[in-house]
Amino acid sequence: MNTKKHPKKIYLPEDRLPKAWYNLVADMPNKPLPPLHPATKKPVGPDDLAPLFPMELIKQEVTAERYVEIPEPVRDIYRIWRPSPLIRAYELEKALDTPAKIYYKYEGVSPAGSHKPNTAVAQAFYNAQEGVKRITTETGAGQWGSALSYATQLFGIDLQVFMVKVSYNQKPYRKTMMNIWNGKVTPSPSQLTETGRKILAEDPENPGSLGIAISEAIEMAVKDPGTKYSLGSVLNHVLLHQTVIGLEAKEQMEMADAYPDTVIGCFGGGSNFAGISFPFVRDKIVDGKEIRVIAVEPDSCPKLTRGQFRYDFGDTVGLTPLIPMFTLGHNFMPPAIHAGGLRYHGAGAIVSQLLRDGLIEASAVPQLESFQAGVLFARTEGIIPAPESTHAVAQTVREALKAKEEGRETTILFNLSGHGHIDLGAYEQYLGNHIHNYQVTDEQIAKNLKVLDAMGFPIPE
Amino acid sequence: MNTKKHPKKIYLPEDRLPKAWYNLVADMPNKPLPPLHPATKKPVGPDDLAPLFPMELIKQEVTAERYVEIPEPVRDIYRIWRPSPLIRAYELEKALDTPAKIYYKYEGVSPAGSHKPNTAVAQAFYNAQEGVKRITTETGAGQWGSALSYATQLFGIDLQVFMVKVSYNQKPYRKTMMNIWNGKVTPSPSQLTETGRKILAEDPENPGSLGIAISEAIEMAVKDPGTKYSLGSVLNHVLLHQTVIGLEAKEQMEMADAYPDTVIGCFGGGSNFAGISFPFVRDKIVDGKEIRVIAVEPDSCPKLTRGQFRYDFGDTVGLTPLIPMFTLGHNFMPPAIHAGGLRYHGAGAIVSQLLRDGLIEASAVPQLESFQAGVLFARTEGIIPAPESTHAVAQTVREALKAKEEGRETTILFNLSGHGHIDLGAYEQYLGNHIHNYQVTDEQIAKNLKVLDAMGFPIPE
Repeated sequence: MNTKKHPKKIYLPEDRLPKAWYNLVADMPNKPLPPLHPATKKPVGPDDLAPLFPMELIKQEVTAERYVEIPEPVRDIYRIWRPSPLIRAYELEKALDTPAKIYYKYEGVSPAGSHKPNTAVAQAFYNAQEGVKRITTETGAGQWGSALSYATQLFGIDLQVFMVKVSYNQKPYRKTMMNIWNGKVTPSPSQLTETGRKILAEDPENPGSLGIAISEAIEMAVKDPGTKYSLGSVLNHVLLHQTVIGLEAKEQMEMADAYPDTVIGCFGGGSNFAGISFPFVRDKIVDGKEIRVIAVEPDSCPKLTRGQFRYDFGDTVGLTPLIPMFTLGHNFMPPAIHAGGLRYHGAGAIVSQLLRDGLIEASAVPQLESFQAGVLFARTEGIIPAPESTHAVAQTVREALKAKEEGRETTILFNLSGHGHIDLGAYEQYLGNHIHNYQVTDEQIAKNLKVLDAMGFPIPE
Repeated sequence: MNTKKHPKKIYLPEDRLPKAWYNLVADMPNKPLPPLHPATKKPVGPDDLAPLFPMELIKQEVTAERYVEIPEPVRDIYRIWRPSPLIRAYELEKALDTPAKIYYKYEGVSPAGSHKPNTAVAQAFYNAQEGVKRITTETGAGQWGSALSYATQLFGIDLQVFMVKVSYNQKPYRKTMMNIWNGKVTPSPSQLTETGRKILAEDPENPGSLGIAISEAIEMAVKDPGTKYSLGSVLNHVLLHQTVIGLEAKEQMEMADAYPDTVIGCFGGGSNFAGISFPFVRDKIVDGKEIRVIAVEPDSCPKLTRGQFRYDFGDTVGLTPLIPMFTLGHNFMPPAIHAGGLRYHGAGAIVSQLLRDGLIEASAVPQLESFQAGVLFARTEGIIPAPESTHAVAQTVREALKAKEEGRETTILFNLSGHGHIDLGAYEQYLGNHIHNYQVTDEQIAKNLKVLDAMGFPIPE
């Protein structure tokens, strides 16, 4: 590699850390549809959300402004690990013998090891500003819970995390990480809420689910005026905060004298995908750039590639407003893949609209292919990716090999959303041949969507 | 913090990655004493070491040259993560309310998460150059085994790691990391060597020890002409490779318009301590700079603060040459502290000579104080340090608080040798109050040193 001319790692100076997040909604040709109240089927207003979120975040959820200023205290904290590096994957390129130039933005340098602190710090800041003393949240694999623990302790806010009981027992290291940052973690279902007590009374051995954990977190927030609730993905304000990733990446690509033909992110609720891609989707809409933007989901949770666009609950239990989204049905139970952060039934309003409008495309990757790509990446680039991030790696490998086959030069940018240090158990199972692919049948999906028909959830034209 | 003038993270451009390692021996006023053959008590020559190491490393072990060129292929691999960042600990300074300026060099950005790959890559390169097909090594907690796994697979060399059985069972994530990088890991004692078979025949439940693992690794290397052995600390050539840390740090401090009054590194076998400090010890000797250089050991393994300077075996079983060093006696069994990398009875020839000559000083930190410092660091700087590295943090906290007490401005530089993502189990025990301090009595130490008297090991004047 010609490292003299082209460095492997491209660092943006701290004084060029973005001063504002980018709100793609301002530039979308078709705006996302509004969320609806499940009973009235009327759009929800700020008052409906006020018990859960501070007013500034509710404003950001619906803002039409193109840029939202990043408060200086949030930028000061971002500087602890941001701007994150953009890295040229010379070693991976060589192993694939591809003419493709591959760049990745590495978010694993953050305290919690993923992109999640980008929004956790912002949310904690706005909550603190409005005098919130305690925040509740749920966490599955624990990435979000640890990011929010880190963020809330910086602002002296107490955090109560409801962690799905089966994960709580399987992933003790994530719990420890939350404890180091003063997060209180309780296996869910718990004795702390009515929801939890009721479930435990009926079934003391209930292993928990993300849906139950959300219910517990929301119940606790709603019942206490000093307590708010926080979500780590799906919602517009969360995606907004993550755009700091793509804004930095654009400047760094420019420093490398490059621009992507393809932008790739793995897809769970949409936060890291939106983070890396929205500033480039802007270029597509506003500047007419020809870029492919690919959201990569696990083939066992295929809402983007095989789901239906319609209104559905954001959670499993049905406590949220109805969100216009590509969905497999809120009752869909994703198979137990190791990429816990991608096990979500729906896609969020903005991303769903982009997919409808053909501004982004979607791809599905089987679990074995994702781990194979993850191991290849670790052996070449030296970083062990989070199981979620391996999906973006796998799609990148596909594109790079296609370019090789076609003898075509191309530039790929993907988001390496986190490291896999806390997920090595999953790699152990992969290396020991204990991991397999899951099939999801059309019948399963159709059955779940039928439930939505029966509930009278609208299907927009 | 005034981030506009002073960035938090100082990155050295890749094209300024050092072109040579620095050999402190060239500038030492008193050279380190030579290692001796245990039987003849005569200095060992290159031939004695030839079955274990490639000739180029044997040359580096005894070279008098001031600088040793870093081969271009090694620099190319270093570029995957080097130069590592120098970080100003603004957040820690604020929490301590200290006038001290604190900087740390962060080696946790490497593939294996510590400074160990700096020498692992160099050693793998020289072995490959001399046609070596397989390397053996031992590992305790697994830091070294994973670094060497990463390095050997880059050069197509097979690696056999003997991992102390009790650690093998306690730390499955480290084993997985080695497996991802194609390292073969066997719990030691094993059936692969005569040493292992003999021990297992007598005691099938033997939990293993670093001494046994070294014996197995050396036996396998000696018996097969295509196989060499590799060590991750103590030896001169290992320390030499690590000086890339301090050389970078010096340039980065200059970029920050700063120079340290105190340089701090934790101390096990000496590799990360030498890496950060030797280029600054040079300034002390050659330029007459007034710098304090502090090696920090656990108070439960106090070879530098309470050991004796004399010849002793480098290993527990007695297979190595006699090394002139501060030692607690090779039979000393360090208590089961979580900083596994600091549980070593001796100090290596160069560092021991520096301590004798008053060019460095030593400090001992109790386990609880080290974890307390580690948690404070995670809550302020956002990085969870490896249990070994927390000792350097603890000493830094001591110095910063002393500066505050005395109202004295001062600049501290320490090496954060690795992250603690694979060691969260230790933090869990600390947070749950399951960790305590260990006392080592003078009688214990004296008893071990008496064994050396009985063996007739020389005590240099």
